[in-house]
Formats: sequence, structure tokens, C-alpha cells
Amino acid sequence: MNVIEIIIKKRNGQSLSAAEIKYLIDGYTSGNIPDYQMASFLMAVYFQGMSLAETIALTKAMACSGKILKLNGLKGMVIDKHSTGGVGDGISLALAPLVSAAGLPVLMMSGRGLGHTGGTLDKLASVPGLNTSLTGSQALKQVRKIGIAMIGQTAELSPADKKIYALRDATGTVENISLICASILSKKIAAGIDGLVLDVKCGNGAFMPDLATAHDLAAILKAVGKKNGLKMKVLITDMNQPLGKAIGNSLEIKQAIDVLQGNGPADFMELTLALGAEMLVLGKKAGTGREARKILQSLIANRRALDKFYLLLKTQGGKIQQLPQARHELEIKTTARGYICGMNTREIGLVAAMLGAGRQKKEDSLDYSAGLILHKKFGDELRVGDPLASIYYNNETLPLKEIAQKFIAAIKIGKIKPEVKYSLIYQ
Amino acid sequence: MNVIEIIIKKRNGQSLSAAEIKYLIDGYTSGNIPDYQMASFLMAVYFQGMSLAETIALTKAMACSGKILKLNGLKGMVIDKHSTGGVGDGISLALAPLVSAAGLPVLMMSGRGLGHTGGTLDKLASVPGLNTSLTGSQALKQVRKIGIAMIGQTAELSPADKKIYALRDATGTVENISLICASILSKKIAAGIDGLVLDVKCGNGAFMPDLATAHDLAAILKAVGKKNGLKMKVLITDMNQPLGKAIGNSLEIKQAIDVLQGNGPADFMELTLALGAEMLVLGKKAGTGREARKILQSLIANRRALDKFYLLLKTQGGKIQQLPQARHELEIKTTARGYICGMNTREIGLVAAMLGAGRQKKEDSLDYSAGLILHKKFGDELRVGDPLASIYYNNETLPLKEIAQKFIAAIKIGKIKPEVKYSLIYQ
Repeated sequence: MNVIEIIIKKRNGQSLSAAEIKYLIDGYTSGNIPDYQMASFLMAVYFQGMSLAETIALTKAMACSGKILKLNGLKGMVIDKHSTGGVGDGISLALAPLVSAAGLPVLMMSGRGLGHTGGTLDKLASVPGLNTSLTGSQALKQVRKIGIAMIGQTAELSPADKKIYALRDATGTVENISLICASILSKKIAAGIDGLVLDVKCGNGAFMPDLATAHDLAAILKAVGKKNGLKMKVLITDMNQPLGKAIGNSLEIKQAIDVLQGNGPADFMELTLALGAEMLVLGKKAGTGREARKILQSLIANRRALDKFYLLLKTQGGKIQQLPQARHELEIKTTARGYICGMNTREIGLVAAMLGAGRQKKEDSLDYSAGLILHKKFGDELRVGDPLASIYYNNETLPLKEIAQKFIAAIKIGKIKPEVKYSLIYQ
Repeated sequence: MNVIEIIIKKRNGQSLSAAEIKYLIDGYTSGNIPDYQMASFLMAVYFQGMSLAETIALTKAMACSGKILKLNGLKGMVIDKHSTGGVGDGISLALAPLVSAAGLPVLMMSGRGLGHTGGTLDKLASVPGLNTSLTGSQALKQVRKIGIAMIGQTAELSPADKKIYALRDATGTVENISLICASILSKKIAAGIDGLVLDVKCGNGAFMPDLATAHDLAAILKAVGKKNGLKMKVLITDMNQPLGKAIGNSLEIKQAIDVLQGNGPADFMELTLALGAEMLVLGKKAGTGREARKILQSLIANRRALDKFYLLLKTQGGKIQQLPQARHELEIKTTARGYICGMNTREIGLVAAMLGAGRQKKEDSLDYSAGLILHKKFGDELRVGDPLASIYYNNETLPLKEIAQKFIAAIKIGKIKPEVKYSLIYQ
């Protein structure tokens, strides 16, 4: 086999065999195929796409590029949850201890924030002392002991994904559903899970801006996951406004605690229960979604889910009492009256990043207590002087006026109440 | 400026500014922009193309990536000739001394063979002792002294082209007319010439298989050359059969000598005169093509052109008396009767490469005396047992039977004489 021929075949719109894809991925992982050949291949894929069969083969080849964890021996099926990323999407923080309290073993691996979106790993890292750098076997040992572990992606799993992901970011080849699908699923398959609930985000704060693309991604994820032996459930949910009220790392940890106490924002509570119910059904801890919701609600009511979260943090060395608080708070008030009829979610995510909650460049360090608390969301009525949001920051050299203006510009205010009812879960 | 944004812009089909293109080329030449980003950019160009303005900017940026030779001080204009490459296309070997004898200063830089096509530099290298590694200023000194120098491409001129060319070859991004145009012309512009006669080859042995693509390339070459201050003449000529009779390095040197003695194959003689006449007209050594042809024919008749060739070889250290001859010769005979109604020229080029005349891999060394002499060409009548070609070789381990079969398979024989008259020069 010849890598140039493989590139040209894809460039010319022909299908690649599973053997050709495996040759490419193995060669790239081992370093025999250089970055520049993979880069031109990825751009050819961007233009020509990949068939379902090719995407299945790509996912498999990437999953098999490193170690595959064996999770057998755990009591119950391991059901993971993954979101394609959004603003304020700290669902995993509350969801993982919640379903663990319901008896599902949870070994969750999360990534860092990307662009305008936050990452669960960054949020966990805002808890002082918390160690997320466990190896696969250390994490497994912890799951056996307390039923849950939340860690970063280990280098042992799907090393091909790690290399390809960084290369896509640097070569303008991020936005292709086959590449996105293989990236998400290869890590999950390598992690040895039994089932996966996927939250495909759709809207102006998501990587999939429209419902049609989100549907395409959802369909391919489902098909490729199943073909690789995973039980799959895919939801498509809204990202036309930030999820919940908090955007920022320690702020989202606090919000997760609120959720586990039953006091979280309505949309955040609802999505946590919806995704959790799907996980319990997939993992056979409940026969129906309705039954699953009842279980989850009772675990919130009796504080077992919250206790599980605290146990998790403590076991991994986290000191929740020392969670950082920003030194400064500033309220952004509206000068217009009317109703919020749209939020530019991506811009709001970038505002949070400017405050220090996210990275503007890869090598940036984070300010864990910086961020935003939203006071108003889609459909809410506004009077002049009403607080729209509070911003939290530590860096006194920030261009606060510019940041506040950027935030205000991201909020679309109309004279009349929007007719459309907000839809959180599309499918 | 940001290289990822430039890649994404091109990927999305937007036009790049001259400043963006210069940023990319300068960054790549200096090594600040890595191969993988240039590779994904090139693949994006393959799919989205480049406008004329972008191609002009690309060519200029590449020409300016290194030294630009100053050829002023020579007596007369420097008119170069370039062919897009074919099989048996050793025209430059005879043409350069011919137009030099007519009074045009000739500083010709040539490349090595590529794929199934031969390169003038390889052909020159078959003359023992011949030194083609002169620097620009050494070559210029020689042109001042004897009116002609033939050398390889120097690293000082268009270093961007050298890097990009190698990368295109390794990333499946060769076939794009803007990239081809910039590659050809950037070197010529950097060489400081006044005018260029371009021979765009078209047919089954050329990189441009059909007339439409050849026309597109011819048009863009002409426009970009003119915009960069070159006097331009572009011919589109046939490559649906090898040019002349000889394919192979020292065999083509011998054929060039025949041509300069007036005894070359008819098509080869005709194209030499046609291209030479265009060069004399561009360089103002003749008012019309007719007048130019007369001059050239007289320089062949009085042996001045041949003397110039010998002087060139001698000045650069070449020992033409020691031109290598192959130890073995084998005649390939036809077993069919009829007429040759087609030749798969690319395959014939590959047969020559298998004999050692060309490289199958980049790092292959050449057998300078190996190759083919064709005895029959398009339209010729064949009787059973007629010799089609003679093959010349030294390596006794070659799979001769397979090679002969490959050659025979490349010759299409029909029962009736083809009605189409062979057309050498399309435009």
C-alpha cells in the first residue's frame, strides 16, 4: 500500500477500504506517515467526505491505535455520556455522581475546553487538589471501590485521535462529521464502555449550527457506535443559548452542587434528568424513562447523589471547601427594554474566555474562578436597568468596558415577547 | 495574519489577497509555516482553485522567495523555452545551441525527469564529464563568453518552488493549473529572462490529457507570464505519441546531433524549427516566423548549430566521444498486421523507465544508455514480423519478456489506415 495513492483515491472521491484506512492510521500513529501527508488527506476528506463504512473503519482503526481498557468485573454496565460541546454545558459534573448513585459504574474521561466551549476537565481542575491524571487501571480500581472516577484522557487510549485532533485544529480540517465521529467514538470504544448517551449540541454556540447537520452527525454517531458494539442513544439538544446560568469553571462546580441539591436552573435540571434517564435505561437500571427519572429525583431528594459527588472529589484529593472565588464582581445592566429574543452563544462563550474562564490560545492558563452568571435568558422580559449578568474576574487589567459591550452585543432584545417557545431537547 | 485563517478562507472558496499569499509563501520558505499547514492549503487549492489574480500573486511570491538573476549586459534578449514534459521530448538539446547560433544568448535551466517523462538535465548528464552544476554567475560568465550555458536549477532561485514541488509530489496535489503555472513561471522569472516560449504538451503522455485543460493552462501561463513582465508565446503540441524516435538519455543526445545535422525525425525537426522560430521572433532576431525558419535552416545546413552544441558540451567538460552505448539491443517485432492507430505514450515512457532510462522511485539511479528507438509511429503500416522498436539495455536481470509485452500492449493496431491526419502543433 502507498500513502500517496490513498490520498489521491480519497481526493478523487473514491472509497477507501478498511485495510487502507488502517494502514494510514497505523502509519500515522507510529510516525511512519508524516504530518503533511495526513494533513492533505484530512483536507481531501473535508471535501469528499467519507461513507458510513469508511467512518466505521476509521473509528475502529483509531480506537485500536492504542490500549483498549477491559472494564469487565465491574458490577453493572458502564454507560458513558458525551456532549459535542457548548457554553455552560457542565452537565457531566452533576450527571456522573447522579447515575453512579443509581448504581451504574461510572468511569468518565473528559477533555479540556476548545475554542468558545468549556471542557469538563478544566471545570474539575478548578477544585484545589483534585487529581484527574489517573491511569486507566488506577481509575478502574477507584470505580470498583466507590463506583465512580472522573479523569482526563489518558495517552494510552486512542493515541491516533490525539495526534489527528491537534493536526485538524492546525490545518482547518475540524468541521467534517466523519472526522468528528471517529474522534468522539474512538476514545469511547478504547475506554471499554458498554453504552453511550450522546448529547449532540445544535445552535449558535455549538459546532453544529443547524439541525440538519446535527441530525447527520447524530445518525452517523449512532450507526458507527452500534457497529462497534456500543449501546447507543443520541439526543439532539439546544445550544442557541448557554445551558444553565453559570459559565466558568468553579462557577459551574457550584452550579452542579445546586443541581444535586435540587436547586439548579430549570433547563440544566431537565437536561441532567433526561440524559441520566437514558443512561439508566441503557444500563438496565430502569425499565422506562419515567421510572428512571423517579429514581434520579429520589437520589437528589435524599442527597445520595450529592454525597457521591463529595466522595468522588475527596477520593481524588479535591478540597471543595477551598473552591476559588473571584475577587471582583460586576453587574451588566440592560439599557433597553423588551424581551430577549436571541443570544449569540458563541460570543458569550468568548466573553467568558476573555475573563479568563477559557483559553484564547492553546497555551493560555485559566483563571478558575472567572466567568459569568446569567440573570436573564431567552424569552425573559427586561426593564431598563435590569441586571443581565454578573461577571466575575480577578485580573484588574482586563478591558472590562469592551467585555461588557461584547456581552451586551450578544443579547438580541426585541420589543415583543418571542412567539416561539424555547425548545431544549429537539430529539 | 494567521495561517489557519488563510487555509480556511481558501477551503471555503474565498479569494486570498496578494499579501496573504506572500505571507504564506515567505513563512513556508523560511520554515515558520510547517509542511502540514502548506499541505492542507495545497489540497484546499486543488479543490477550490485560484483566480488569475491569486495565481499572479502566488507566482510572484514564489519568484521572490530567493535570488533574482540580473541578465542585463548580455548582447540581445534572453528568450527561454520550457516544455510541460513528455516522452522523447529532448527538443531543448538541439534547440538551445540552434538559437544560440542564431545570436540569442541562451541560459537554460532544466530539471530532472518526473514520473514517465524525461528531463533535459538527465539527458545532459549522460555525456561523461559534463558539469551542469554551475552557479548563476558562473553560467552567466559562460553565456557572455560562448553565448550559451545549460545547467540544472540552482537552489538560489525560487527556493519556495523547490519545497512546494516536493511537497505536492508527496501529498497528491500535483494536478492544479495554478500550482503548475506558479511552479513553471516562478523559476523563469527568478532566472531573469526576457521572454519565454512555452510548449504545453497535450495527450496521453502529457500531464494535461485533453485539449481543454491544455488550453486552460496555456491561457493562465500566458496571462501570468505577461503580468510578470515576460514576453510570452505559448504553443500547444501533441503528446499522443512519443516525440521523435529516441527515448532514453544518451539516445536522445545522439538524436539531437542528428537533428543539428538535418537528419532528425520529421516531427522532431518540425517542432524544433517551430519553437526556435518563435524564440527568434520574440527575441527580435527575425521579423517573421518564415524569416526565422530560414535562418535556423541555414544554421543547420552550415553546421554552425552543431558546432555550437559541441562547443557547449566541451566548455562544460563533456566528452561526447565517450557517450555511453548500451551493451544489449533487442528488436521488438509485431505479430499483427495493420496500421498503428494509437500509442499509449505514458506506458511507453514507463517501459523506458523500466529499462533504466527513467526513475521508478525518486532515489533510483539512471542507466544513461538504456532506452528505446521507435521504428514505427502513428499511421504507419505494419506487416507481421516488422520491427516496432529496438530496446537498449545493460542490466541482464531485467524481465525482458514482460517489458516487451508491456510495450506491445501500448501500441494499438487497427485493420484500416486511420483517417485522422497526425497533428503535431494544435495551436
